[in-house]
Formats: sequence, structure tokens, C-alpha cells
Amino acid sequence: MAVYTEVDDEELTAFLANYDIGELLSCKGIAEGVENSNFYLHASAGSFILTLYEKRVSEADLPFFLGLMEHLSAAGLVCPQPVRNHAGSALGRLAGRPAAIVTFLNGLSIHHPEEAHCAALGERLAQLHLAGASFAPRRSNALSVDGWRPLFEPYSPRADEIAPGLGDMIAAELDYLESRWPGDLPSGVIHADLFPDNVLFLGEKVSGLIDFYFACNDALAYDFAICLNAWCFDSTARYQPAKGRALFDAYNRLRPLDSAELSALPVLARGAAMRFLLTRFVDALNVPPGALVRPKDPREYLAKLVFHGTVAGARDYGFAE
Amino acid sequence: MAVYTEVDDEELTAFLANYDIGELLSCKGIAEGVENSNFYLHASAGSFILTLYEKRVSEADLPFFLGLMEHLSAAGLVCPQPVRNHAGSALGRLAGRPAAIVTFLNGLSIHHPEEAHCAALGERLAQLHLAGASFAPRRSNALSVDGWRPLFEPYSPRADEIAPGLGDMIAAELDYLESRWPGDLPSGVIHADLFPDNVLFLGEKVSGLIDFYFACNDALAYDFAICLNAWCFDSTARYQPAKGRALFDAYNRLRPLDSAELSALPVLARGAAMRFLLTRFVDALNVPPGALVRPKDPREYLAKLVFHGTVAGARDYGFAE
Repeated sequence: MAVYTEVDDEELTAFLANYDIGELLSCKGIAEGVENSNFYLHASAGSFILTLYEKRVSEADLPFFLGLMEHLSAAGLVCPQPVRNHAGSALGRLAGRPAAIVTFLNGLSIHHPEEAHCAALGERLAQLHLAGASFAPRRSNALSVDGWRPLFEPYSPRADEIAPGLGDMIAAELDYLESRWPGDLPSGVIHADLFPDNVLFLGEKVSGLIDFYFACNDALAYDFAICLNAWCFDSTARYQPAKGRALFDAYNRLRPLDSAELSALPVLARGAAMRFLLTRFVDALNVPPGALVRPKDPREYLAKLVFHGTVAGARDYGFAE
Repeated sequence: MAVYTEVDDEELTAFLANYDIGELLSCKGIAEGVENSNFYLHASAGSFILTLYEKRVSEADLPFFLGLMEHLSAAGLVCPQPVRNHAGSALGRLAGRPAAIVTFLNGLSIHHPEEAHCAALGERLAQLHLAGASFAPRRSNALSVDGWRPLFEPYSPRADEIAPGLGDMIAAELDYLESRWPGDLPSGVIHADLFPDNVLFLGEKVSGLIDFYFACNDALAYDFAICLNAWCFDSTARYQPAKGRALFDAYNRLRPLDSAELSALPVLARGAAMRFLLTRFVDALNVPPGALVRPKDPREYLAKLVFHGTVAGARDYGFAE
């Protein structure tokens, strides 16, 4: 959560003159998004989010992310809609950085999702996967199985700072995942970070999906596994079968998982746990002293990884077969 | 700029049930305010700011600040209006902290004020001073002349880290200010921090004054001197007489400065420069390594202090007499 870049009011006014959003009435930096600087813009034509892309996001990927949001919006999935400038582009430049304006969405993130929220998520996730099928651009997933070992190795000598034995455990798990990772599952556009932070609700209804800056092409069931980890465990990292089943049933109704996907779920869920364990692990070892951002605890995902190692098949998640 | 405290959606919902602001549609942490955690709330009854008061603000002072905002709003000065809860109180508790909801104001801060902005400020400052006369509660100014030496002394051995010779210079200036500080000027409620950040504009019109968390009782002309320093110098800390005169003329039209106040302006302006030099100096020596907040440069206020030392009287500021 951050505003990394300050925007001068005169620069902002000049930038906004390229857009049809009317008179600017307010601009507030918002403490949301770890990667970028975000501002809430209130203008006479409505409310918007202005994002300045900081160095952790590759500029070459921005047309993919913005194009995907336009594509999904056009397909009826509520997500931030990029606003094009007078030159017809969704991407501009402000304060020396690539910048975009998207529509502001009402809604609140749910900190403790219940079954109804998991069901609502499952429906939207399936809709996202179905709508993504007609999106032509491609972006590979740098944080999939091939990316994990290069991410881990520079930090492996320090793994035991996080938990005793963690280094050996991750090394062995990477061997397992690299040898068993399924290569031929149905694939397409995945969100890849659809945590409760990134799903807005009004009551029990989803009002929008946000933060598409990890979206890429990968196995659709891997995206399901990421959601299973992020939504269907309690605060002590214990699996909640009723929530898992609510997610599964709602997803499966719109896009039934095939038998290969069902069989692969335990290894996909282990991989999904590994991916967030590793990024949290690296972040935890890189917190500057005194920083205001508290890193997320990597051990939460260690516990989930251990749990999935005990699962023999989809039935153990409580899914109907 | 910060959100120091995370608010759980369930805690927030329970808290808001005590207020008549309708259905909550959005809540975003905003990167504004150094002292407190601030959230933008969009609800069916309108837009609001939720503030959680962190430890740098004394809880005992909150009724003064909130009462003052209510008083000034009632007097027609646009500032955030505290929203009272069902128990009739403007002060509640959330996430273990004192918390208040105030109305959201449209408007933008001006980074490079022009003469018209200085004139608009002068008018509002005088209105604030006039409206404050009927506000009964009192709060002394902990950051006035008696507070400066105790603030400086623990850090005096490190002053030369900021600028060579700064320690001796501040010590001599404190001697001067303590011996010459005027004790009998017209006093009342002052904002005490009316920097461009805290004045919202729509075009050249002030749309609101914000951030009353340094407000206190002190010499009214000292508040004028704080504004002179904050608004009427260029980015290289050179005094701009046309801006000073615009501020002075607009203020003086509504609340004429008397001869004692005019004579005291140079020493008040030196004191006002000292106050911000010292807090910036202490902040600069206390930045945690790696912190996301960049401290403001104390040397800007050193340059202003030096300038005011060359001023013999109000005429040297370019004010009509």
C-alpha cells in the first residue's frame, strides 16, 4: 500500500486535459496496491482510479493488462474499465511514469469470507475464464513452476530465518513440483492473484474484480487452486471444506473441471501455495527496517502447502465427483 | 501520509451502524495526514473521511479539534463537519483507537500558489480568526516559543548533520526569540498549520480548510506569519513580495492588523520559521532507514529564518501601511 510518486497539481491538470472526465474535483493518494501508486480521482464525469506504474511492473506488459480489462468489461464482467485519452490510448505518461485512468468501482473487500462469498467468487472466476477465451494477446506466467527455483535460490541460505528446516523443505517440494507439474491442462487467461483484497462485494454480491497486474496465460485450474488457498482456509490456515465446496460447485456449474484438472488439483494447490510462500518469503527477507508496510507471513502458506501434501485427490477437498 | 491501522470490514460495519450515513459503498485508506490513519468512505448518504487517531495526537485534545470544526462550519467557514453518532458524540472508537467521521470536501491542494491563491487564503484566514472568537474551549500552543528549546536540546549535538553551524545558529536565535517574543498581541483560535496542503481549491476559490489537528489559542498574527512563510516564498525560499501583499491586503480588509501586530511581524515570522525548522529538523534526524515517507527539508525554513532576520519592519514585506 503506497503512493511512491507525488503528482504535482499542474502536471496532473495537463495530463487530465487529454481525457474526457470533466472538471477535477478531488485527487487523493490511496493506500492500496503494493506495486504501483494509486490515486482516487473525483471528477464531474464520475469517479476514477489513476495508476502510476512503478518499476516493478514491466511497461511492455501494460497493454496486456489494460486490454484484458477492456475485453472483460465488454464481456460483461465488472472490472475497472480503462479510460482512453484523446489519442485513443488507454496508456499515458505522468510524472515520468506510465499512467492509466480506470473507472472506480464501489464495493468492499471481505476479510473473512463465508460460504456465500466463496460461491460468488467461484461464479465470477468461471466467468472470467470463459470470457478470457476470446482475448487474443498472450502473457506467460513468470511466477509459475519454472520461475520458483530461480526466485528461491538467492535466498535459500536464509530460509531458516523464517522457519527451522524451511530451506530443505522448499528444495524437496520444488523437486516434487517440477517432476509432477501437469503440462497439458486447459489453459487461458487467469487472474493469478484473486485474493479477497481483489474482489469487491456489496453485501453477498460481487460488485467487481480488481488488480489484474499478475494476469497471464496459464492452466485455468491453477487459478482455481490459487483461490482455494486464498479463500477456503480459516485464520489459522486450516482448510474449510464447506467453503471449498461452495467455490467448487459455483465454478463447476459454469465451467466444469475435467477429470485431468480434478486429478491435478492437489499438485496445483501445492504449487499455488509454493508461489505465495516464495514471494512472501522473499518479501519478508527484504523489508527495510522501519518500513510502514508489514509483510504478509510466509508461514501461512507453508501450513497450506503442508496440508495439500496430505491430500490424495479432489474428494479430500470435499468436492462432489 | 499513511494508514497506520488496518480496519477489518466487520469492525467497520459494526462501527458505522452507530451513524446515519446509509449503506457503505466503498472504503479506501488514503495517503494523507502524517499523524493519523485516514480512510475515504463512500456511503449512500455521501462521502466522508474516517480518521483513526494514532498516538501522536492526544485523545484529550480531540473534543477541542472536533468542536472547533463544528463551530467554524456553523459560522459558515467550509471545513470538515464532524458527523455525530447515535449517542450524539462526534468521537467514537474503532480498532482500539479514537475515531471520527467528518464530511468529505471537494477541492485540490495547490503546489505553487499564485497571488490569487494567497489573496483567497488571506480572506479565509481572517474569517477563521473572526469566527474563532466565539469558540469557548481553549488549547495552549505546545509548539510556541516556550516549546522550542525543549524540542531542540536533545538533538542539538546532531544539528550540524543538517547544515554546518546550524546548532550555534539555532541556539542564538532561540535566545533572541525568547527575549523578544511579544506577549500581549490579540489572540484567539489559530489553525497553526495552514500550509497549501491544508487548503482546498476549486479553480482560484477556496473550497475548504482541512486538518485542524494543530489548532490552538495563540496570537492571531502568529498564524498570519505561518501563512506568510508557507505561501509567499518561491521554491528556492526567496520571499515574493507580491504574494505577501496579496495575503496581507485580503486579510487586512476583514481583520486589520493593529500597529503592535504590524511591528511584531518580523519576530513572529522568525518564530514561525523556527517552529517548522525545528520540527522538520527533528523529523529528519528520526527517519527510519528505508521508510517510505520522505521528510521535508529543514533547510527551506533555515533560509526563511535568515531572510526574516534581515527585515526591519512590515514595510520590508511590501505591505501597505
